[in-house]
Amino acid sequence: MTKSRSLPVITAFKNSPDKGRGLARDMRVRWALEEVGQAYEVQLYTFEELKEPSYRALQPFGQIPSYKEDDLILFESGAIVLHIAEKYPGLFPADTNARARAIAWIFSALNTIEAPIVERSFFVMLERDKSWYNERLPILDERVHVRLRELSHQLGNNDWLDGVFSAGDIIMVTVLRRLTSSGLLEQYPNLCEYISRAEARPAYQRAFASQLAVFHDTLKS
Amino acid sequence: MTKSRSLPVITAFKNSPDKGRGLARDMRVRWALEEVGQAYEVQLYTFEELKEPSYRALQPFGQIPSYKEDDLILFESGAIVLHIAEKYPGLFPADTNARARAIAWIFSALNTIEAPIVERSFFVMLERDKSWYNERLPILDERVHVRLRELSHQLGNNDWLDGVFSAGDIIMVTVLRRLTSSGLLEQYPNLCEYISRAEARPAYQRAFASQLAVFHDTLKS
Repeated sequence: MTKSRSLPVITAFKNSPDKGRGLARDMRVRWALEEVGQAYEVQLYTFEELKEPSYRALQPFGQIPSYKEDDLILFESGAIVLHIAEKYPGLFPADTNARARAIAWIFSALNTIEAPIVERSFFVMLERDKSWYNERLPILDERVHVRLRELSHQLGNNDWLDGVFSAGDIIMVTVLRRLTSSGLLEQYPNLCEYISRAEARPAYQRAFASQLAVFHDTLKS
Repeated sequence: MTKSRSLPVITAFKNSPDKGRGLARDMRVRWALEEVGQAYEVQLYTFEELKEPSYRALQPFGQIPSYKEDDLILFESGAIVLHIAEKYPGLFPADTNARARAIAWIFSALNTIEAPIVERSFFVMLERDKSWYNERLPILDERVHVRLRELSHQLGNNDWLDGVFSAGDIIMVTVLRRLTSSGLLEQYPNLCEYISRAEARPAYQRAFASQLAVFHDTLKS
């Protein structure tokens, strides 16, 4: 609940491969910070700079985002959002059981839902010219559908995953948005509405605008 | 720190595909509970039973483990181990920054390290008879090696990921153990020693023996 002595600093891509669509993992952290009303600074890195030892000292796997707040250095978007949700009010329910369930949804999004989505994304990006591409893509699509069907069933007509909006929804929505251009989400109207409901939040829109501004600045430079 | 009114109950496979090698995700939760000295009960499910609505009410994705403690129902091994580490002393450092970093290692293990390992495991299990198997396997091996090299560099000569043993090590070791029969770990002596160091812990051994007993019981029945 205490304010930081200096602004938290996050890292992000200087040239994000998603071209400002808000699909990189810094979006989750920006959104969480906007929800709790904490200003932050952003340091931008090229892919080459992410490989350098100076960045690896901050983030052993050369990924974005990392997070620095006073003498705390953190990595992994799930851990950073969880930290923000513990430090500031608004992203975890007060009830301890509900809070534990919100944390379970963070893990579920990152481990159960994101894994087949990322596997499919990398396949589409890296193996499109391979002889096996057309035969293998439906296998990966179906792995994603298995999880989307289960998630859609679980969400039902609820606005959010477990009662009130939480850090679990931030992570889940940003994971699902990675499928935006795939067409796989269309057969799950309640998941599409869930994403739209989240995207309508003012904090989401501020976060989205901030990361889009980075892309526009890149075009100018 | 409070003891449960009744024993926590976890769920596990009745017929684990790993045949008692401790690679299923209930092992993480058993190990964490053994480290903190909390007795627990286990409910076993067949693959068919995991698909039934009664189990889906407990775990929306039909996975093991789930965790029940009084009126709290949790899923996702990462969330369950994190909950245990928050409830009982011994698995998180007292210092709040060190605790946040231990949580980051849980996420790193489950999102950054486990994803390529699971992708490779499923490929070996499900696509061995495909025409592309031999050409594609080295691509997946290399994705795993990228992360193992980085993790090996980060661990260096340290006993554990961040100072004292923590819940982050429980998750990371159980993630790395999924590679046991792959041969990929052999070129990282410090990671092999890290796993051995963990496996030597009495709590690990008790947890391993418990899940092995389930397999032996299965053989008898």
